[in-house]
Amino acid sequence: MSNPVLVEVTRGALVESRHRGMIAVVDCDGGLVYSAGDIEAAVFPRSACKAIQALSVVESGAADFYGFTDREIALSSSSHSGEDAHIVLAQAMLEKAGRSVADLECGAHWSSDQTTLIHQARTMDHPNALCNNCSGKHAGFICSCCHQDIDPRGYVGYDHPLQRELRATMEDVTGAVVGADTCGTDGCSIPTYAVPLRALAHGFAKLATGNGLGTVRAAAGKRILSACMAEPFYVAGTGRACTELMALAPGRLYAKTGAEGVFCAAIPEKGIGIALKCEDGTTRAAEAMVAAVLSRYFDGDIAEALRGRAKTVMKNWNGITVGEVRAVLPA
Amino acid sequence: MSNPVLVEVTRGALVESRHRGMIAVVDCDGGLVYSAGDIEAAVFPRSACKAIQALSVVESGAADFYGFTDREIALSSSSHSGEDAHIVLAQAMLEKAGRSVADLECGAHWSSDQTTLIHQARTMDHPNALCNNCSGKHAGFICSCCHQDIDPRGYVGYDHPLQRELRATMEDVTGAVVGADTCGTDGCSIPTYAVPLRALAHGFAKLATGNGLGTVRAAAGKRILSACMAEPFYVAGTGRACTELMALAPGRLYAKTGAEGVFCAAIPEKGIGIALKCEDGTTRAAEAMVAAVLSRYFDGDIAEALRGRAKTVMKNWNGITVGEVRAVLPA
Repeated sequence: MSNPVLVEVTRGALVESRHRGMIAVVDCDGGLVYSAGDIEAAVFPRSACKAIQALSVVESGAADFYGFTDREIALSSSSHSGEDAHIVLAQAMLEKAGRSVADLECGAHWSSDQTTLIHQARTMDHPNALCNNCSGKHAGFICSCCHQDIDPRGYVGYDHPLQRELRATMEDVTGAVVGADTCGTDGCSIPTYAVPLRALAHGFAKLATGNGLGTVRAAAGKRILSACMAEPFYVAGTGRACTELMALAPGRLYAKTGAEGVFCAAIPEKGIGIALKCEDGTTRAAEAMVAAVLSRYFDGDIAEALRGRAKTVMKNWNGITVGEVRAVLPA
Repeated sequence: MSNPVLVEVTRGALVESRHRGMIAVVDCDGGLVYSAGDIEAAVFPRSACKAIQALSVVESGAADFYGFTDREIALSSSSHSGEDAHIVLAQAMLEKAGRSVADLECGAHWSSDQTTLIHQARTMDHPNALCNNCSGKHAGFICSCCHQDIDPRGYVGYDHPLQRELRATMEDVTGAVVGADTCGTDGCSIPTYAVPLRALAHGFAKLATGNGLGTVRAAAGKRILSACMAEPFYVAGTGRACTELMALAPGRLYAKTGAEGVFCAAIPEKGIGIALKCEDGTTRAAEAMVAAVLSRYFDGDIAEALRGRAKTVMKNWNGITVGEVRAVLPA
């Protein structure tokens, strides 16, 4: 089965490039609300499931113990751009647990955001692990371990108690079975588990509504999505899609990207979760797809703004319009 | 017709992302040597046809008049990274014609190569038009105009004499008809014309062999490809695919990338031209595809090195192997 073309990139009057993909919209009972492409195929959610991974820091009591506000919780489930405020907050989280950048096991990289990279290049010799887009998530992991008296050393390893917990959490939230045969290593070195797109969407519907989750987990899930929606800058950064999408409809829309063209989203008031992947892993397509599918569940200015993000103009180095990136989802 | 999957991106034991595409390998008589996908579809060659566009600077006599060596000719058909040596040479070319950066109409942008961008960010406030990856091509355009007593002002415009000449050259080399209905605006603001992939491959076979071209054009084409093969750094830059591919087999292999997943190539000793496009416009896939298809026409160490580029390991921020990008071309 070929996945359908869901995004076209035009130049002049012609379509220059095409992106295929799959989309699942699922309600909190697991009912399929909308789909395109092969939604039973197993997909690595990558960073799009960070809200699920962040359940540990809330459920363990670490978030309350260390006095985390919405900002720290949002950063715990972020892929941030490495802007100064992100770095400062990740460091502060580690310090609350008596830890430091030396305890991070995520590796270091320059910002993938050009403006931030230029700022970093002018203010630092080399990036450290706090600059890693996952440093907030890893700071949350370390805080969770410390609060539970678990030695955080090696917390990225498949057999570390934290990763065992995350595996069980992933299974509970998505309903999928995960393990060594569906496991890959993520950019930040923790295990990532491929799950059917449909199960991932169902998981986000459960997080958004609490349906099908235990009391503690239901509360933790709502708290994490609410924190991200309240502090979208700390989920991504200036000009980033996740941040701007959540800012469009404050408190009403959760969205989180993952590498290789993944997006997860939820609309709590509709009780739905969304998971999608661009087959070829391209971010521009995933961003157009998520805006297009979200626009189906809003009206008025929010729907219009989302449709605007589903069809964006491309300009060249002289600012001349050369084409567009447009979602072409089936009805 | 769906184009076939030609590149797989794996993570752990699973395929995480897939790239579809089309490839045409054509001999100098237009005979099809190898193909995959829809090679009759019109494709914007973008920067992959810069060698065709550079014919003007050689055929006009400008290259000889201004004393251009292989380096200037290579830079005239380059998409360079904006490294210092590229910028200096582009400026020197303009100065030979009594012109300057102010005459460039390509717009300005930071380098898309991270190492170069960091260097630029530390040494300049803003990039100027010399930093544009197309500045060498544009410098060549301006030199061609000046040598022919054509006012270069507006040389990026569809109706400027230079663009009329480039249109006729494109038709002569590829055998395709181009015009307003197949025209888009390129990143550097000049017109780009969609042509069937098969015609583009044939054009590069003609350039590599001289077959089917007039005497002057045949000599100019060979001179340009030879210059690029002799000075591959000036076609792209440090660590770039075009540069490294040509360095693998000095004088025996020409390769040039274009935006949105295009590659053109030629193997003069085999009399073949190659044109390919990744359907979704992704560079990593186009690079794997071109290495895989080139490897079919070499043996020994060169073939092995090309196969190594057709299947590359992906490492994460900690240097851990997480998967691979691998071409999976049909036999």
